[in-house]
Amino acid sequence: MGVTHETQVRVRYKETDQMGVLYHGNYFTFFEVGRTELLRSYGYSYREIEESGIFAVVAKADCSYHKPAKYDDLLTIRTTIIHISKAKLEYEHKILRGNELLATGHITLAFVNKEGKIQRVPDWMTQNESEK
Amino acid sequence: MGVTHETQVRVRYKETDQMGVLYHGNYFTFFEVGRTELLRSYGYSYREIEESGIFAVVAKADCSYHKPAKYDDLLTIRTTIIHISKAKLEYEHKILRGNELLATGHITLAFVNKEGKIQRVPDWMTQNESEK
Amino acid sequence: MGVTHETQVRVRYKETDQMGVLYHGNYFTFFEVGRTELLRSYGYSYREIEESGIFAVVAKADCSYHKPAKYDDLLTIRTTIIHISKAKLEYEHKILRGNELLATGHITLAFVNKEGKIQRVPDWMTQNESEK
Amino acid sequence: MGVTHETQVRVRYKETDQMGVLYHGNYFTFFEVGRTELLRSYGYSYREIEESGIFAVVAKADCSYHKPAKYDDLLTIRTTIIHISKAKLEYEHKILRGNELLATGHITLAFVNKEGKIQRVPDWMTQNESEK
Repeated sequence: MGVTHETQVRVRYKETDQMGVLYHGNYFTFFEVGRTELLRSYGYSYREIEESGIFAVVAKADCSYHKPAKYDDLLTIRTTIIHISKAKLEYEHKILRGNELLATGHITLAFVNKEGKIQRVPDWMTQNESEK
Repeated sequence: MGVTHETQVRVRYKETDQMGVLYHGNYFTFFEVGRTELLRSYGYSYREIEESGIFAVVAKADCSYHKPAKYDDLLTIRTTIIHISKAKLEYEHKILRGNELLATGHITLAFVNKEGKIQRVPDWMTQNESEK
Repeated sequence: MGVTHETQVRVRYKETDQMGVLYHGNYFTFFEVGRTELLRSYGYSYREIEESGIFAVVAKADCSYHKPAKYDDLLTIRTTIIHISKAKLEYEHKILRGNELLATGHITLAFVNKEGKIQRVPDWMTQNESEK
Repeated sequence: MGVTHETQVRVRYKETDQMGVLYHGNYFTFFEVGRTELLRSYGYSYREIEESGIFAVVAKADCSYHKPAKYDDLLTIRTTIIHISKAKLEYEHKILRGNELLATGHITLAFVNKEGKIQRVPDWMTQNESEK
């Protein structure tokens, strides 16, 4: 039911660790790529949102790791907006290698202005959601 | 009641993002530093554990962000083992700037051998815990 | 005259620093992406090369920064093999935003086996070069 | 003859790659730590310099890799200011493990204001140098 978008990334050597897998903290970077590209697919640019004076800050983040991603794997980031309120936006992110689910995470965003004061979730985000 | 250890890190320029704060994904690196130093304080080296053929893999990770950490902040990583079972080890990590709590996270580890087969949590870990 | 390949990357939020630009150390990650994709365009996979027991280690690296790359910029990585000898492989990397040159770097690779012993540059690399 | 300072860092798991060594691009982060701590040892804070509206941008960077650093290695970063002019500041960085030299690098900084306009190297930097 939520807004969903898929994009792909390839695991870089830099992103591996000496266990020979994608370092667990780097999944959060891929989640970030997923959110940026979901936004772009709706015609929005997070860069322009920041330039307009609104900043999305991460309030909560989690990830469950099912199977390791490896160097040079071509991964799919499947990003879904699962909850929007006036104050928060919640995303689910799935990392897949083909049909194999490697990791599932959630990110909760809040919005602030340049002074760091909490803002409402921008209206157009609520509207996109309700149009689905 | 759990085993607790504190160590300090200073936020590097590399670890900031253009919002002028520590990038949210980088807290997980600080949590890793906390676990390594807790182990060292008990006379163990995670490097030697890996050399003996046992690898700690992250099964779950989460973080709640209360206040942003900034460049050059001297942070305290307070790491506590909050649960040990035969299969898993669960840590709580708190990131503080002086007395201010900036973030709280949890990491669940499982143990595998070189072939990736699940291993029991090493006995000496269980013993350290029970001695507290 | 050398083998050249172009690939694109988009600057991630994680890769920026609080100056609002791509952190200078992260250009080396983009250079790595360029080398991997150049190899792939010739039908080779660096992952498979490592699996066969040959590892490319960086002996020297440099970068000159002309103009800053920014968050969400779509960059071109232009990678050229500029020198091949029996012992070393030297690449030039240019980072462009459209026609604007942002940075120029060089990477010299040597090859080692699993024991870390120096190996000759693989023959097929020399051959690709001479076919150009 | 130049201003020199030493500080220590321990290689984090995050900073390794699947070759089991410190990723080559991460040496530049250690160089950055060295510059910050050299400044601090003279009573200056790069954070405060930025807050005053002066920003140090990297114009050139290089590194020669002699021996790999490994996970959990306690490394010494030896940072020396090797050249100061009105326009540029040049550092040499050596990374050591005990007495073993692992890598040598150079960083050239220029200074800009908030608008990105080139500034002279701050006077107190020139003065510290001449007092040595």
